[in-house]
Amino acid sequence: VLVFLNGRFVPAARAVVPVNDRGFLYGDGLFETMRVCGGRPFRLAQHLERLMHGADFLKIRCPFSPDRLGKYAGQLIQKNKMLEAVLRVTLTRGPGERGYTLPEKSRPTIVMALHPVPPAAGRTQWRLITSSYRVPAADPLSSFKTMNKLTHVLARREAVEQGADEALLVNTDGEVVEAAGGNLFWVADGKIRTVPTACGALPGITRAAVLDICRTLGLPTGRCAIKPGALRKAKGIFITQSVLGIVPVTVLDGRPVGPSPLPDRIRRAYDEMLAKTPTRR
Amino acid sequence: VLVFLNGRFVPAARAVVPVNDRGFLYGDGLFETMRVCGGRPFRLAQHLERLMHGADFLKIRCPFSPDRLGKYAGQLIQKNKMLEAVLRVTLTRGPGERGYTLPEKSRPTIVMALHPVPPAAGRTQWRLITSSYRVPAADPLSSFKTMNKLTHVLARREAVEQGADEALLVNTDGEVVEAAGGNLFWVADGKIRTVPTACGALPGITRAAVLDICRTLGLPTGRCAIKPGALRKAKGIFITQSVLGIVPVTVLDGRPVGPSPLPDRIRRAYDEMLAKTPTRR
Repeated sequence: VLVFLNGRFVPAARAVVPVNDRGFLYGDGLFETMRVCGGRPFRLAQHLERLMHGADFLKIRCPFSPDRLGKYAGQLIQKNKMLEAVLRVTLTRGPGERGYTLPEKSRPTIVMALHPVPPAAGRTQWRLITSSYRVPAADPLSSFKTMNKLTHVLARREAVEQGADEALLVNTDGEVVEAAGGNLFWVADGKIRTVPTACGALPGITRAAVLDICRTLGLPTGRCAIKPGALRKAKGIFITQSVLGIVPVTVLDGRPVGPSPLPDRIRRAYDEMLAKTPTRR
Repeated sequence: VLVFLNGRFVPAARAVVPVNDRGFLYGDGLFETMRVCGGRPFRLAQHLERLMHGADFLKIRCPFSPDRLGKYAGQLIQKNKMLEAVLRVTLTRGPGERGYTLPEKSRPTIVMALHPVPPAAGRTQWRLITSSYRVPAADPLSSFKTMNKLTHVLARREAVEQGADEALLVNTDGEVVEAAGGNLFWVADGKIRTVPTACGALPGITRAAVLDICRTLGLPTGRCAIKPGALRKAKGIFITQSVLGIVPVTVLDGRPVGPSPLPDRIRRAYDEMLAKTPTRR
């Protein structure tokens, strides 16, 4: 397997970064994860736009333009003959001295690697728990997919330890924010609802795709904050994420989630959209 | 320069980790930074104890005992002939698949590297700002020095951009927690005060040393939460950290800090303690 590392394609065994890369020292970097379908990364432009937006905020200068990165991603897929895969793009501030102060000059690190589509992609429904871990409310970093993901890792572990598939994170104001690995949707008063990014939800690429789909299907949508107690009474809960797409939730905190035909309808529309992704030649 | 990497001493140029190390992917790891004085890491046992405590919490099995790590640290210092230095110890969950779910088996990564003592070690006083970044209140991760330090990096950048030396972080309950790179102390009602760890302050090794010193000198101490407005009225503010020791603060948010003889007295006692560290033979 070849990995794209700073402009070159190297065998996975040589895909390494120095121990003083600030991504390794402090999580000083960003990443994107997307589904590759028929040889083409789904919604690549949107993923790279979010990456670049985060890089602007962190003041990390990506060594390649989004166009150039897209070309390299295509080459990576062809070289590895992995037409169905998960693509992870990682951008860090690169090697630097220890200490939080930013280095005067930096040579950012960029990595693109392909991974197999997880078997969980066949799983059609999830059991959720509400995590005991809290994320800060009104955190400017919540708009970006940073490499600081220990809370998400621990929330996922908490879910697995309780026999569930995924955990919901709540912010320090007591509002539900998102799942460890995806955005949250539910059905209430005939509307498809999701958490506003102002609560700390990542502006997910699949989340945006679902809002597009609802517009196309004429389904009314709304963004509103919700507390765990209210969510437990909601119907048609589902999670959106780039790797698995739309995942309906059947159980939340041990109780069955009220059914709704809408998540399945949206999932079918999403899977069609994914299948229609033009194949890369 | 040699770096200790997973049981071997390797030249810095070969001190690398795979791009799928979970420390690099998600900040899934911990670190410690300590001052090496006369060839000996100051309060090494306490640093390694905190590291192991964090490793227990994260369920990362450190491949070496604290005793063994201490011996390797001594060899690293001797081999590099760096008797005055900063030692960073990093422990991560090691290589793993992408995705937040913990790998079933892991082979943790351990790194020890020596760095020069920063020239800032000669700086005897700091100007502080209160950062606009917030850390979560009551976060169980705040007890450990995790590799998720982007908020600290950005707070430090905010301070530097405003012409200050360091930033104070406030939690989502509005309480001052700590400096980006150290614990906070101040003088009020004749007592040396610091923030309780319950507010989200790291249980700092130098913080503990200062509390020991105060006990020895017969200076009364107290732990109490403080808001930014109250802190601006406090006297004798100082920051404690492992690299620089005790750093008095002269300016907070543009206003001069009321003087007190106590920080200098504590600093002298701390510097003596540091100088008395037995030299490694």
